[in-house]
Amino acid sequence: MQTTFLLIVEIIGTLAFAISGIRLAAVKNFDWFGAFIVGLVTAIGGGTLRDLMLGATPFWMLSSWYMTVTALALFIVIVLKRYLVRLNGTFFIFDTIGLGLFVVIGMSKTLEFGFSPWVGIIMGTITGAFGGVIRDILINEMPLVFRKDIYASACIVGGATYWLCAECGFSPEVQQSACAVVTIAIRFLAVRFNWALPSLNNWTDDKVN
Amino acid sequence: MQTTFLLIVEIIGTLAFAISGIRLAAVKNFDWFGAFIVGLVTAIGGGTLRDLMLGATPFWMLSSWYMTVTALALFIVIVLKRYLVRLNGTFFIFDTIGLGLFVVIGMSKTLEFGFSPWVGIIMGTITGAFGGVIRDILINEMPLVFRKDIYASACIVGGATYWLCAECGFSPEVQQSACAVVTIAIRFLAVRFNWALPSLNNWTDDKVN
Amino acid sequence: MQTTFLLIVEIIGTLAFAISGIRLAAVKNFDWFGAFIVGLVTAIGGGTLRDLMLGATPFWMLSSWYMTVTALALFIVIVLKRYLVRLNGTFFIFDTIGLGLFVVIGMSKTLEFGFSPWVGIIMGTITGAFGGVIRDILINEMPLVFRKDIYASACIVGGATYWLCAECGFSPEVQQSACAVVTIAIRFLAVRFNWALPSLNNWTDDKVN
Repeated sequence: MQTTFLLIVEIIGTLAFAISGIRLAAVKNFDWFGAFIVGLVTAIGGGTLRDLMLGATPFWMLSSWYMTVTALALFIVIVLKRYLVRLNGTFFIFDTIGLGLFVVIGMSKTLEFGFSPWVGIIMGTITGAFGGVIRDILINEMPLVFRKDIYASACIVGGATYWLCAECGFSPEVQQSACAVVTIAIRFLAVRFNWALPSLNNWTDDKVN
Repeated sequence: MQTTFLLIVEIIGTLAFAISGIRLAAVKNFDWFGAFIVGLVTAIGGGTLRDLMLGATPFWMLSSWYMTVTALALFIVIVLKRYLVRLNGTFFIFDTIGLGLFVVIGMSKTLEFGFSPWVGIIMGTITGAFGGVIRDILINEMPLVFRKDIYASACIVGGATYWLCAECGFSPEVQQSACAVVTIAIRFLAVRFNWALPSLNNWTDDKVN
Repeated sequence: MQTTFLLIVEIIGTLAFAISGIRLAAVKNFDWFGAFIVGLVTAIGGGTLRDLMLGATPFWMLSSWYMTVTALALFIVIVLKRYLVRLNGTFFIFDTIGLGLFVVIGMSKTLEFGFSPWVGIIMGTITGAFGGVIRDILINEMPLVFRKDIYASACIVGGATYWLCAECGFSPEVQQSACAVVTIAIRFLAVRFNWALPSLNNWTDDKVN
């Protein structure tokens, strides 16, 4: 039952990530294959990077449904494109729920492999945020996550929550739920209240002086 | 005898891929070292990505002739640059033959490692097409393969042919020959008749509505 | 004593590499998180790529001080930014010393893993120069190392010196010291005397003819 629930959340998250990538590829005039790849990379790129660094086989090579879900995402964008803009709010919710779960997956897989919790926080952040970084590299844009919004920061705080709950001796279920809830909550609040990290933008001025 | 034949085809394919990368680097005003790296990445980048995901040592670390062939490619471009444009047709033929072989190598290596055939199709496509993607990232261009031509699609259909022949119980030689021939044929026909995948280019208009 | 010395040099090199990345991120208006990542990637990206290809766990996952040093680099840039330009010469010295050490680390780790010396030269160059390449990809610039200066070339000659000393039967200490000294010396001389590799820049003219 719980596994089924997690699987459904992971499918929804993968679908939302893939759709977000395909929509950006569409703006850039990519063909169907290119859009599929950009969607796929957005959905599985972070986890692939994590698995390569953990020394594990990339997770999507062991189950074909990540390909199926990405193909479904491409189909949805092609068929529904006229209506997608109205669904922006829905996508944002799915995307954020996916983000929370991806951080949990990245963190717990890293701990299973015997690494320190701080490595787990990094891997959780990579799982959640670096699919988008690779997507931005492929569409030749400066990675959005480095310049706007609280996105990766939500992953980091979520991962730290996981660690804290583990230190306090809470059960794995509590650790994982708290991690997901905190990540999702910070992301929602950041978008709602326009939170942003300070930038280093006065730099160029100073250089002139 | 057959091994020698395959080795010659691989050298020709590597040379053609490396020359194509070096020529693009030249347009971007790279120095010799940069051009060498871009040529090398074009030739071996796809196979390296494949080997990392398979958990294998990147193939070029086990034999020095990939470096030698890339150095030869740089030499050819520097010495013959005045005449290279006239040889475009020849390069296209070499490049396409190389593509067919690269797909076969990627597919069969993946099957040897015990992965499913659909993983093999992906790895064949990565071997054939993603050296060019990494090349385009290095020269700061939007990856060509995502926007133009039937290139990666030819790899996918070639890989699917391999799988189909295996399912039908044909011998490995038939599987591999059919894969290479189909990949090469689709690529030639696509360029000859200007085949292209549909793009998602009406997207931005719709967003305005 | 010698280990302590090497550790101090590695910390200085990591700090210098991270600061150089963070300063570029600042010019691009990245936020603190983005700047931290760009600094981190500049410092550890080359070694990570090397370790993935060697089949080793990325070195920074086994010790937390690379994160600490990068955080220190971010702190330095934020606090001292008004004065950093005056320190350009100091940073250049640190950066170059770090470069020499990174080549030694890449080369000797590769040899430990049982690969040929020419693979070691490549891995030494990747360790020294490819953090900067990944940094340039992240900030969406054409990689500097491919277009300007003798940088990667210094790594290659330094690595070749290592090999030569090994062939001559010198002790590991001599091999490593010679490698570092040669790399550093070439880099200093190249900047002092404006050495540069020839570029392939007449290409576009020829294409018109």
